[in-house]
Amino acid sequence: MPETGSSTGKLLLRALKGEKLAVPPIWLMRQAGRYLPEYRALRAKAPDFLTFCLTPELASEATLQPIRRFSFDAAIVFSDILVVPHVLGQRVEFREGEGPALAPLVDERDIGKLELARVAERTRPVQETLRQVRAALPREVALIGFAGAPWTVATYMIEGGSSRDFARTKRWAYADPRSFAALIDCLVSATTSYLLGQIEAGAEAIQLFDSWAGVLPETEFRRWIIEPTRRIASAIRARHPAVPLIGFPRGAGVLYETYAGAAGVDAVSLDSTVPLAWAREHVQTRRAVQGNLDPVLLLTGGSAMAVAARAIVTALRTGPFVFNLGHGILPETPPEHVTALVELVRGGSARA
Amino acid sequence: MPETGSSTGKLLLRALKGEKLAVPPIWLMRQAGRYLPEYRALRAKAPDFLTFCLTPELASEATLQPIRRFSFDAAIVFSDILVVPHVLGQRVEFREGEGPALAPLVDERDIGKLELARVAERTRPVQETLRQVRAALPREVALIGFAGAPWTVATYMIEGGSSRDFARTKRWAYADPRSFAALIDCLVSATTSYLLGQIEAGAEAIQLFDSWAGVLPETEFRRWIIEPTRRIASAIRARHPAVPLIGFPRGAGVLYETYAGAAGVDAVSLDSTVPLAWAREHVQTRRAVQGNLDPVLLLTGGSAMAVAARAIVTALRTGPFVFNLGHGILPETPPEHVTALVELVRGGSARA
Repeated sequence: MPETGSSTGKLLLRALKGEKLAVPPIWLMRQAGRYLPEYRALRAKAPDFLTFCLTPELASEATLQPIRRFSFDAAIVFSDILVVPHVLGQRVEFREGEGPALAPLVDERDIGKLELARVAERTRPVQETLRQVRAALPREVALIGFAGAPWTVATYMIEGGSSRDFARTKRWAYADPRSFAALIDCLVSATTSYLLGQIEAGAEAIQLFDSWAGVLPETEFRRWIIEPTRRIASAIRARHPAVPLIGFPRGAGVLYETYAGAAGVDAVSLDSTVPLAWAREHVQTRRAVQGNLDPVLLLTGGSAMAVAARAIVTALRTGPFVFNLGHGILPETPPEHVTALVELVRGGSARA
Repeated sequence: MPETGSSTGKLLLRALKGEKLAVPPIWLMRQAGRYLPEYRALRAKAPDFLTFCLTPELASEATLQPIRRFSFDAAIVFSDILVVPHVLGQRVEFREGEGPALAPLVDERDIGKLELARVAERTRPVQETLRQVRAALPREVALIGFAGAPWTVATYMIEGGSSRDFARTKRWAYADPRSFAALIDCLVSATTSYLLGQIEAGAEAIQLFDSWAGVLPETEFRRWIIEPTRRIASAIRARHPAVPLIGFPRGAGVLYETYAGAAGVDAVSLDSTVPLAWAREHVQTRRAVQGNLDPVLLLTGGSAMAVAARAIVTALRTGPFVFNLGHGILPETPPEHVTALVELVRGGSARA
């Protein structure tokens, strides 16, 4: 466990680098989004979701809205993990109320058509968003960049959207690991380039979202989750050793421990099902941890939320720790529950 | 670890009761179903899926089809976990290609309307199915009865079908645990009565399917998964101490260990993400284990399936073990892959 001993600097970065803090820093996954009325008003200004993500004036404003309202310790650039398939030239659409729809990759030739050389140029709007946000952020607030991890992005590219059993993706990986590795390699390169660009534009920490990490047996988890993450992490570390990387292998279960030891990340984001005592012993002894309030408890509010949030803080603040949810904020969440949660984590007496 | 030392009796029952066997018994979740052409022909004889489940001549034939084709060590009565809400008087429909649709429970009054007193009478067709199957089964093949576990059945009853985030169910359980407990209590009673009826009609082992166990934080996992399972297990054990109970808390992750120690089951069915070395150390030291080939590997077949199946057998046959999948057979699975898997697990030289 690194002990930097630093007592200056942004709280989020200090915790991610291994420092124990008396009051944990807090931010929430999907803290910018549909649960905020000001977001819904802003969203109406773009014809579609991808245009919204790639218009710096709109995306930067969306990023800043929750900071103004809740004074979180970190902002996370407003974007989407499917920006990477989009800039690789795959057709990606977001249909209202239906989730994303992609023209699915069907065979190795489709992988060969991906336009890796265009990633840097096509992701410039995200860099511009980061620059605008960084210039506007209060000095104590850290700026997080992010991307989807290769496995999770690959599932969308092959399934053509979200999936129940991931049968197409897994079958491809099982039956033809060589061509599946070509897709993962392409995504490692694209993601590395994209994240380096984000750091150069002002991101001070990075989160890799592996939302569908929880569907693979151990052998494939090591090959398609841990190994690509490790490659991205070492490429980033080589250029920007001070920028911490948070990995979020949602649903990894027992394999959270393996991931913490081998994926090369500075911090591990825990989903809500990870038991706190186990996380403290098996994950937090190796890395900083982040998490893990059930988003449905934030939706519920009241004493159920308060009891659970206090239990998390009590269990995890004895090591390096960032308070967060176990998954993104649900759209129906009342914003006042978020206010109450922030006060509670910071030790205020408010009850949601 | 109990060591019965018994060397006679059906292989499945011996393994579930804690005996190590040189060649593991094998059956597969959803071994009767749409991947079999003879099932699809049989299914066409009933106007809807619930009628099919509750017509003993059809359900018993569906149960027996995979036994004839593959000589599994166990048959599992053909039915559905949503038979329980149906016999409790909730409206349940299965729409072709869409999954189940229920008239969702909205508040405590809906719980009060559930017709617990009618369960015994309305589940008689399932008992009749079991009697017919038992009479027709080869003497070495065990007969398994089953039900959904209360938590999983409650999610369908409240969400009105399957769900992505289970927000309605979890919110109810968080915000009003007293009335949610009334629903769970009702399901514990209904499920116990239903399973006792199955045993009295010939079921020699029972599996409790908790398909959505993997979405709860530890506190709620103990309260809504482990505790109801323990109550059902002890009621069954009081009447039928020789009938083994298999629990399947799919997706339980780290909490598989807690479940194995506290849920009162004889055997634990592992999903495909549970690492084998961990399962051997943390689950199989307490209970017999069952699992855990990824159904997508059965769909894929060939050397990928063979390598993974052999790794499972090698890792787990040093303790009490039943070979199975980590989840149900996918409808697109070629039946010849199942033939190859059975030969492979039994030590034949066939390659799928």
